[in-house]
Amino acid sequence: MGNKAWSGRFTESTDTFFEEFTESVSFDSILAPYEIKASIAYAKALKKAQILSEDELEALIKALEEIEDQINEGSFHFKREYEDVHMNIEKALFEKTGEVAYKLHTGRSRNEQVVTDLRLYLMDEGDKLKDLLLCFITAIIEKAENNLDVIMPGFTHLQHAQPVLFAHWLSTYAEAARFHLERIQDWEKRLRLCPLGSSAFAGTGFPLDRESLAKELGFSAPLSHSVYAVSSRDFSIEFLFILTLIMLDLSRLSEEIILWISPEFAFIDLPDRLCSGSSIMPQKKNPDSAELIRGKTSVVLGNLFQLLVLLKNLPLSYNRDLQEDKPPLFQAVNTVKASIKMATLLVEGITLNRDRLEAVLKEGHLLATEVADYLVTKGIPFREAHHITGRIVRYAEERKKKLEDLTLEEFKSFSSLIGEDVYTWLTLDHALQRREIIGGTGKMSVKTYLRNFREFLEKWKS
Amino acid sequence: MGNKAWSGRFTESTDTFFEEFTESVSFDSILAPYEIKASIAYAKALKKAQILSEDELEALIKALEEIEDQINEGSFHFKREYEDVHMNIEKALFEKTGEVAYKLHTGRSRNEQVVTDLRLYLMDEGDKLKDLLLCFITAIIEKAENNLDVIMPGFTHLQHAQPVLFAHWLSTYAEAARFHLERIQDWEKRLRLCPLGSSAFAGTGFPLDRESLAKELGFSAPLSHSVYAVSSRDFSIEFLFILTLIMLDLSRLSEEIILWISPEFAFIDLPDRLCSGSSIMPQKKNPDSAELIRGKTSVVLGNLFQLLVLLKNLPLSYNRDLQEDKPPLFQAVNTVKASIKMATLLVEGITLNRDRLEAVLKEGHLLATEVADYLVTKGIPFREAHHITGRIVRYAEERKKKLEDLTLEEFKSFSSLIGEDVYTWLTLDHALQRREIIGGTGKMSVKTYLRNFREFLEKWKS
Amino acid sequence: MGNKAWSGRFTESTDTFFEEFTESVSFDSILAPYEIKASIAYAKALKKAQILSEDELEALIKALEEIEDQINEGSFHFKREYEDVHMNIEKALFEKTGEVAYKLHTGRSRNEQVVTDLRLYLMDEGDKLKDLLLCFITAIIEKAENNLDVIMPGFTHLQHAQPVLFAHWLSTYAEAARFHLERIQDWEKRLRLCPLGSSAFAGTGFPLDRESLAKELGFSAPLSHSVYAVSSRDFSIEFLFILTLIMLDLSRLSEEIILWISPEFAFIDLPDRLCSGSSIMPQKKNPDSAELIRGKTSVVLGNLFQLLVLLKNLPLSYNRDLQEDKPPLFQAVNTVKASIKMATLLVEGITLNRDRLEAVLKEGHLLATEVADYLVTKGIPFREAHHITGRIVRYAEERKKKLEDLTLEEFKSFSSLIGEDVYTWLTLDHALQRREIIGGTGKMSVKTYLRNFREFLEKWKS
Amino acid sequence: MGNKAWSGRFTESTDTFFEEFTESVSFDSILAPYEIKASIAYAKALKKAQILSEDELEALIKALEEIEDQINEGSFHFKREYEDVHMNIEKALFEKTGEVAYKLHTGRSRNEQVVTDLRLYLMDEGDKLKDLLLCFITAIIEKAENNLDVIMPGFTHLQHAQPVLFAHWLSTYAEAARFHLERIQDWEKRLRLCPLGSSAFAGTGFPLDRESLAKELGFSAPLSHSVYAVSSRDFSIEFLFILTLIMLDLSRLSEEIILWISPEFAFIDLPDRLCSGSSIMPQKKNPDSAELIRGKTSVVLGNLFQLLVLLKNLPLSYNRDLQEDKPPLFQAVNTVKASIKMATLLVEGITLNRDRLEAVLKEGHLLATEVADYLVTKGIPFREAHHITGRIVRYAEERKKKLEDLTLEEFKSFSSLIGEDVYTWLTLDHALQRREIIGGTGKMSVKTYLRNFREFLEKWKS
Repeated sequence: MGNKAWSGRFTESTDTFFEEFTESVSFDSILAPYEIKASIAYAKALKKAQILSEDELEALIKALEEIEDQINEGSFHFKREYEDVHMNIEKALFEKTGEVAYKLHTGRSRNEQVVTDLRLYLMDEGDKLKDLLLCFITAIIEKAENNLDVIMPGFTHLQHAQPVLFAHWLSTYAEAARFHLERIQDWEKRLRLCPLGSSAFAGTGFPLDRESLAKELGFSAPLSHSVYAVSSRDFSIEFLFILTLIMLDLSRLSEEIILWISPEFAFIDLPDRLCSGSSIMPQKKNPDSAELIRGKTSVVLGNLFQLLVLLKNLPLSYNRDLQEDKPPLFQAVNTVKASIKMATLLVEGITLNRDRLEAVLKEGHLLATEVADYLVTKGIPFREAHHITGRIVRYAEERKKKLEDLTLEEFKSFSSLIGEDVYTWLTLDHALQRREIIGGTGKMSVKTYLRNFREFLEKWKS
Repeated sequence: MGNKAWSGRFTESTDTFFEEFTESVSFDSILAPYEIKASIAYAKALKKAQILSEDELEALIKALEEIEDQINEGSFHFKREYEDVHMNIEKALFEKTGEVAYKLHTGRSRNEQVVTDLRLYLMDEGDKLKDLLLCFITAIIEKAENNLDVIMPGFTHLQHAQPVLFAHWLSTYAEAARFHLERIQDWEKRLRLCPLGSSAFAGTGFPLDRESLAKELGFSAPLSHSVYAVSSRDFSIEFLFILTLIMLDLSRLSEEIILWISPEFAFIDLPDRLCSGSSIMPQKKNPDSAELIRGKTSVVLGNLFQLLVLLKNLPLSYNRDLQEDKPPLFQAVNTVKASIKMATLLVEGITLNRDRLEAVLKEGHLLATEVADYLVTKGIPFREAHHITGRIVRYAEERKKKLEDLTLEEFKSFSSLIGEDVYTWLTLDHALQRREIIGGTGKMSVKTYLRNFREFLEKWKS
Repeated sequence: MGNKAWSGRFTESTDTFFEEFTESVSFDSILAPYEIKASIAYAKALKKAQILSEDELEALIKALEEIEDQINEGSFHFKREYEDVHMNIEKALFEKTGEVAYKLHTGRSRNEQVVTDLRLYLMDEGDKLKDLLLCFITAIIEKAENNLDVIMPGFTHLQHAQPVLFAHWLSTYAEAARFHLERIQDWEKRLRLCPLGSSAFAGTGFPLDRESLAKELGFSAPLSHSVYAVSSRDFSIEFLFILTLIMLDLSRLSEEIILWISPEFAFIDLPDRLCSGSSIMPQKKNPDSAELIRGKTSVVLGNLFQLLVLLKNLPLSYNRDLQEDKPPLFQAVNTVKASIKMATLLVEGITLNRDRLEAVLKEGHLLATEVADYLVTKGIPFREAHHITGRIVRYAEERKKKLEDLTLEEFKSFSSLIGEDVYTWLTLDHALQRREIIGGTGKMSVKTYLRNFREFLEKWKS
Repeated sequence: MGNKAWSGRFTESTDTFFEEFTESVSFDSILAPYEIKASIAYAKALKKAQILSEDELEALIKALEEIEDQINEGSFHFKREYEDVHMNIEKALFEKTGEVAYKLHTGRSRNEQVVTDLRLYLMDEGDKLKDLLLCFITAIIEKAENNLDVIMPGFTHLQHAQPVLFAHWLSTYAEAARFHLERIQDWEKRLRLCPLGSSAFAGTGFPLDRESLAKELGFSAPLSHSVYAVSSRDFSIEFLFILTLIMLDLSRLSEEIILWISPEFAFIDLPDRLCSGSSIMPQKKNPDSAELIRGKTSVVLGNLFQLLVLLKNLPLSYNRDLQEDKPPLFQAVNTVKASIKMATLLVEGITLNRDRLEAVLKEGHLLATEVADYLVTKGIPFREAHHITGRIVRYAEERKKKLEDLTLEEFKSFSSLIGEDVYTWLTLDHALQRREIIGGTGKMSVKTYLRNFREFLEKWKS
């Protein structure tokens, strides 16, 4: 018998370049722990179906555990000529146990093994992702809580729009992440279904107890359709999609950090340990890690598309194209985990330049909406009030004045309804107070929001 | 006051080409019914907050309903110079009610209006999608039920692998769709949250009752963060992602239909009404609609990509880039709805060429796995049994014989353990019987699967 | 004979929804002028091959020209039941000329017609694109020439790096566009090859003179492989790729404009006619058109993706999937043309805030590299000089001083080699003067660059 | 001085995770040979500018060459804490030469180094790609020449369309590749421009001779704009685009190979050494390598998008996001090189099943177009001739007859113009003979095409 599991029917040995071109062990070896776990469960099922004896089962489990130890120690050598993780482990098993190793494949196909391993892998990665998101969220909520009194200009179109609490603005990213946690939970329902027993695609020809096999491995149930089990990759695409959504958020946060630390904004500072310099310009302190998160967003977007495009037009059931499902998935998983970790460090590292923020709040007529709203309370329809205020702003702009520095006469020249009380509307605090509404930027509202979030986190962690 | 809602502060009128470049009414006018619905609810909330009087509210509602009628009749003219659906309707409202129309915008921003409209639109489209998926699934289940006795060669790598019931193979697409229904339900939890009250992003400055506003519009609750409400498009990206998954499945089904109707396969036929011909080759009958579904999969993939890329690197909160979120979403929604409908017609139209299927089942040694499994029952470890069978196949291949036509002597020359009973394993029926396992291709299993599916459908429809 | 060109072999009429799903005339009607042009040329070739008589040719040409007039006037009605632009025109031709219309399709297939029309369309669009790029480049060069004396901080990592001429920085976009012009020229070599004579894919069965047919239509030669002619879409993908590169540049320029006009940067202003306001915040003046260019970049990227993915896995020769090649191409062409035009208006509209630029040049230690370079001239290896300067910057930073404000003693405490002459290095002008090198930011270099560019433009236009 | 080139200004040492997150040496070390080459040239230019002495130059060159030897031998250790390939080599240089190593960075920035290295790398990879394409083309042309007499059914819509020479059909892929060679040549004009002298982006402050520096490295000229030099990645995106086009062609060829070797088609066979089997089904012989090429097409498509998306919205000049330009480029380069090699082996390995091809030519009424064309020669307008033939085909179909088996009476019942001579049109040879036109499938035309191609190849290789 040759190196290959399938050499019986072949008259030539495999072309060397073909072997190199088609191998997957160089990347699927990270599935080895799951392959072993699934093999042990499968051996137990074969025993139950009386295909293995008690002794054979014990021998297999012992050998598989030894292999696992070797892998953990780094003393196991994966070989390219054995194609993939499955065959590498089968070969090692044979070396340890002899012929009984060859029984383990009874009624079992690599088509189902690979999706079983992948699902087990993703069950672990899903957990890790939730933990990382919780750390990230916690960093945001803490930064928000610790800077509850800081007001910043809220932006639309990168123009000053209205005053907003920094805590409110930053916590947008926690809010978004909260929904990602929910998405992961929803996806897990579909992930925790076991392919084993599907064999190549038609179902195994041996009487395996699929339900107990599923439970043994921590799945909630067996998959209910054997062709679907080996043909679909929706379970990993959906995860990669959630990873992509997360990266988009991180790219937006990174963009803001890069803006905020630029000398023109100068809203924040970052510790030296999270920045790097230039090989030629000695003064440089660059927000490289934020830029790289932004850049790595492209990587993950591309990974999602690699996986989606892979599936297009593929007839059922298993086609070898599907081997290419793993590199983009693994790359995305690793990139996103590292990026969340980096983003968490960045959020933790942010120091606010309060003086600078105070200064910029004076720019850009952030309280213009207040004037329009004031006019509404005097009975002017909003659209007209808006128009009048627009003209006041233009007038102030031309004279390089702030709105609060206009005289009452000046105000009155635009509308006789404007009275002395307009000046009480022209403060940041008043503007915030007016927004004590669910989800709004009023200080009480934001406090409530943060407190609710803490409760949410407590519930999640428990 | 000029055409624009915001002209007060401006000293020049808008450049004509700028107007053309930035308008969105040419595509967002389809949101008009939702804009009107949301405006009525918003007017009620303003009334409750004592910004509108009872009379004013009535006047606004009456006028908005008139506008809706005009739109439904096609007599409403959307104008590009009014930028978008929101301003077009506000202008029409002003023409009907005068100044009170200008009160409706009190504390309200287009930033929140557009996401409210989009969420309402998607609530409807989600329902339509579920209905279409149910029709598609029903067509598959029916076609499966009506052809329960038909066996076909199951494929891996587009090579003959093992025999499988046609009903089993085809129902893979129903199984996949079932998970999409579940995904839509999960997504709806996140969709049914109301942005109104978020204003530009900081929360409205007027005391609106956000909870009753949300309920009025059929949302389950208000969104809990005003910056998130206007900045995020995750709710529409997630839907577009589900649409993409659906299209990938349809592309795979289409690929199979195209293969099956090719003269080389000839597994199925399609009615003339669902095919078209060639302008030059008179004999042609082409599966154009399946090809177009396959082609349109690229469109939807690209739409998802357009929406994802749009968000990358965007600082909070609203940026005008976000206007480009609608064309890819609308294109995808319409493409997928049409494609599911077309795919349903195709599935319904399939006629099986039973004679041809019977003939091809004799090709490709579909029962080779049975021989290996048989050897396992004689005590040979599977991997070795596989190897022996491989050599038997090669032997048969060289002599252009089928496995079942080999003599017992020939069999025995490969393994003395092979006995007369091997021939009982070498029938299609025996192979299927051996796969009476959850999700497997045994006839009873498939019947059970289809019956369970019918129950699932009943539950869904109720 | 039914509506369809191919109904002879069919026993049922086409399903209504199928008709709607498969029609293309709703988007390919814009190819009508090219269809007519190509049909006239084809008719001439048929005459030459003695398939049409002189009279028949004249009748056809006259009728085709009438149809063209109708289309130009808008009085021609394209009908969905005639599928596509080709059949719509053939039907109209039949109404005008009777049976002779039916001769025009002799040996001709829609497979070759559509690629001929597309190539002719792209020949025109390529010309328009070159013109638009030239306008864009000219606007940049002019803006650069008119602001030759303005220095701005050059950025890396959005941090102040070194001083640079605004003219130098902005002209980067002209430099990039110059290469796009070259790419278009290269692509045109591959575009200007004529498919006609390829028929369905095997070559026509009638003795057409392909070379004169190609010349008649403005192609440089016939395509040399008939299967390739109808199967490949590389000619349009390559164009769409160039369009994508252009959009990426415009997205970068837009990003810079959005930054520069933000109140924090305030480097530039834009005229009111190219901005818009907010429906709620009266003070807002937003760079919407720049944001939309940025957003539309996603559209074009997605279009490229749609076209690329469409081709993946398609067997030769024509498959109906290819019908979907047109919508993304047309969308990209129109989007990019409009975006270049908008970007040109934006560049023309830029006003520099010279005072602000002067002020910011004092921030961020833009001359630190000069100190390091100065130390090099004193014999210190650059890497060490860089390190010393880094420490000087840190020292200055901590004291909130600028480098030029440090005393000689302070300087000397870092390196005794620093002398009085260091101050002559610490001016913007000196820094620029030191960069009089090909492509560098020295004033003379930039002048030379702009002059060379003018010459390049003159040559191009002639 | 710390590990970092830029530590002077920093008060904290770098965070360990930050270091891991931002390093690039794990992937950019493959640029080392180019880094060394460029450093030697740069040292020479510094010598010419009198910044290095003759001895210093010699010492640097000697040490750089030693480092190169170490790298080639595999004894050089790249360290992550030195960030990237540039700093790793600078550190090694310092260990060998001491302080003079620190002079090499005079006026030089990593911003320009990395694009110089990348351009040199791509100059090599472009050459390798051309060689691989030539091998691929040669394999096709040879396979075509050796099977010049084989006729196969040409397909449209995966339906039988018209007879075609196998040599003609297969050579479509050579034709496509020919244009890719041309694209590479065009791209090389834009690639062979040297960034050195651009420094960080503003141009170097030292009087380097950029033209001789460019020539020394094999570039045709220096880049003419220093900001463009470090900001643009168009040179690598364009290459990645060409790689993508190539992969799309290979995916189409692979699809056809997979179809042709399926038991239903059975047009070809492939040698065992280029196929693999199944771990469970002993009879399987799968075209895995073709499937993997198809799958890897998704990888390269994703790589192109990773690079395109990376650039979107990036302000000038260098941003750290650009570090992520390399992994997708390198992955695509390696994937495409391997895929072309694999595809070449597959083409070489194809054996045609001539008996099977002969048999299938009888299916699908491949000569129906001939009947229509025949009727045209009898004076019937083509569209009508097409319609009559359609009805003849339907008639034959219903009786399960081939067209050539219809009696003259039967033919005449559709058109009295049909005579005995129709049978001479109803042979494959006649159909081919009628297509002796440039690019057509006539035997002489195809021979001429292949001969011309041989000449083209000779010219290319010389």
